[in-house]
Amino acid sequence: MVQSIDIQLTTKKKEKPPAKNLQFGVHFTDHMFMLDYHVDKGWHTPRIMPYQPITLDPAAKVFHYGQTIFEGLKAYKTEDGRVLLFRPDKNIERLNRSNERLSIPHLDGELVLAALQQLVAVDQDWIPSEPGTSLYIRPYVIATQPCLGVAPSTEYKFMIIMSPVGAYYAEGVKPVKIFVESEYVRAVRGGVGEAKTAGNYAAGLKAQEEAKEQGYSQVLWLDGVHLKYIEEVGSMNVFFKINGTVVTPALNGSILDGITRNSVLHLLRAWNIPVEERTISIDEIVEAAKNGQLEEAFGTGTAAVISPIGELNYHGEKLIIHEGQTGELSTKLYDTVTGIQNGVLADPFGWMVDTTAASTASK
Amino acid sequence: MVQSIDIQLTTKKKEKPPAKNLQFGVHFTDHMFMLDYHVDKGWHTPRIMPYQPITLDPAAKVFHYGQTIFEGLKAYKTEDGRVLLFRPDKNIERLNRSNERLSIPHLDGELVLAALQQLVAVDQDWIPSEPGTSLYIRPYVIATQPCLGVAPSTEYKFMIIMSPVGAYYAEGVKPVKIFVESEYVRAVRGGVGEAKTAGNYAAGLKAQEEAKEQGYSQVLWLDGVHLKYIEEVGSMNVFFKINGTVVTPALNGSILDGITRNSVLHLLRAWNIPVEERTISIDEIVEAAKNGQLEEAFGTGTAAVISPIGELNYHGEKLIIHEGQTGELSTKLYDTVTGIQNGVLADPFGWMVDTTAASTASK
Repeated sequence: MVQSIDIQLTTKKKEKPPAKNLQFGVHFTDHMFMLDYHVDKGWHTPRIMPYQPITLDPAAKVFHYGQTIFEGLKAYKTEDGRVLLFRPDKNIERLNRSNERLSIPHLDGELVLAALQQLVAVDQDWIPSEPGTSLYIRPYVIATQPCLGVAPSTEYKFMIIMSPVGAYYAEGVKPVKIFVESEYVRAVRGGVGEAKTAGNYAAGLKAQEEAKEQGYSQVLWLDGVHLKYIEEVGSMNVFFKINGTVVTPALNGSILDGITRNSVLHLLRAWNIPVEERTISIDEIVEAAKNGQLEEAFGTGTAAVISPIGELNYHGEKLIIHEGQTGELSTKLYDTVTGIQNGVLADPFGWMVDTTAASTASK
Repeated sequence: MVQSIDIQLTTKKKEKPPAKNLQFGVHFTDHMFMLDYHVDKGWHTPRIMPYQPITLDPAAKVFHYGQTIFEGLKAYKTEDGRVLLFRPDKNIERLNRSNERLSIPHLDGELVLAALQQLVAVDQDWIPSEPGTSLYIRPYVIATQPCLGVAPSTEYKFMIIMSPVGAYYAEGVKPVKIFVESEYVRAVRGGVGEAKTAGNYAAGLKAQEEAKEQGYSQVLWLDGVHLKYIEEVGSMNVFFKINGTVVTPALNGSILDGITRNSVLHLLRAWNIPVEERTISIDEIVEAAKNGQLEEAFGTGTAAVISPIGELNYHGEKLIIHEGQTGELSTKLYDTVTGIQNGVLADPFGWMVDTTAASTASK
């Protein structure tokens, strides 16, 4: 039996931002979800409450030792008014894998799903309905025990906040330029690269800044052991189409098990396009680009869904991919995934979770 | 000209915990220091205020992307009533190196030193004076911009909190048992291992927990590339005395540039003991232990100062060091460093910063 969620509604709704040109993660909805943990009580007191600042002791462990994990997923409003979540079960599974790696106590998946559905229902008016828009949902856990000893916290908060987001590509899907990073390293086997935890993102900021200074939107990360094998692009997984075959780095413990990555693999296999999950060296990509066999490249992630790569810069050499234009496969994947998400296309894999009932109940 | 620090004193002093058996980092003094940053204003409004909870937006970047750094140092009260800080200049230098790596704006070193001195002065009654005790000081920066975009924050808080700490070794210096970690990795070259940032500590929790389950107090970290070369022990630097020569891993970018490490190197050189900062493989240590040439091993850090290692477990094999007892060099280093820190011994290197004047002024 899932714990019942107490709901305290706001008495003062915020003005919603204009749906046009919504920046990512800047505006937040009227409500948030909170659940507390204490080592003596377990997870307790699930509640939906008005979005509000949180108050913590300055010694709270999250500030000092980074014991925290998060997730990211989206809710969509269909043309016929249904409210859909994209594969929340996968996010909940990964949330608990991240918890395990960061020594954070396991969360009840059913309670997390109920919290997602009820919070989305309460703030359903915040889900934008313009093409390409959605409601971004950020579940996360922070360690709150006020103690400077380096050891897992005895207290945590699990929260969910939500933010309406605009179309990632305001003017149609557009390829990005990527800098192949051969100095900074994001993660290494045996580390926390596979977990969705704060420190992985902090570790990537410097490289990202330096790439931006040179006119590149993101970096392509190479592995920490050899600085040779491809891992991720920015905070996305990465795919290459070489001579008709699509390749992507195998899950090796240091890259994120992306849910868009997993969905793209499902689609490619359903379409009978040859797919390989394996080790890929940067040299192989450079050679394929020079031979004219590198047909397309793209990143996958919740924010952009599919982000085509038009240029790779490796050691100063610029490799132009698909003449800097979006390829056919990238377009087809983008249209299919977003079509399923928006409820415009059929959902052959049963990915979408319809929460319209929860939403109607809360009206 | 250093910005002047506004001081708001508490009207309700807390009861101090008994000086006996003080746990590390659990009790905090009456006041804290705070300084704000906004990209349009720079660092501004330095102030000392009553120790109190802080209020942040749930979207504050520190919770999601771990953009945060910290320092740790101690203040001591001497028998003749002087108040001393141990090498604060080194902490301030490292603070800014960590800031640089984490894309956090540079802090004015003079302002940080003034903040340390004035805060210690305000709360000087909190410095315990029993042998082995001190006031632990924790300066830290957190990213506070409420925005989920993965990019450096436009807003930060720099804070200092302080906690009275008991003698690390209540019953005399005692060797610890260490588990050589060959699965989990703390950091890798090109990463953030050299920075004192939250994510490094989060990454180490799991290994530490598993070592504790097997009866070991900490892990010995090996390098991320080869899983072969020694890096750190727990959150301390590590030294080995082999056949009369003291060796410690060279600063390679993935280990912390410890201030106790640096101080121990100064002392060893002053004592004409052969010292090498170099790459050290775990195999070399195992062989030296088996040959009877591994005379001593110890960790160095602000909390314990010197932490002798009595046993190493590598792949199930137990290597006993110095018969599990504290060695002569470990004892001499501990007595000398703590003697200088407590003002009992002369300070030949000019390490101690006397803040008695600041303290007297604030009376």
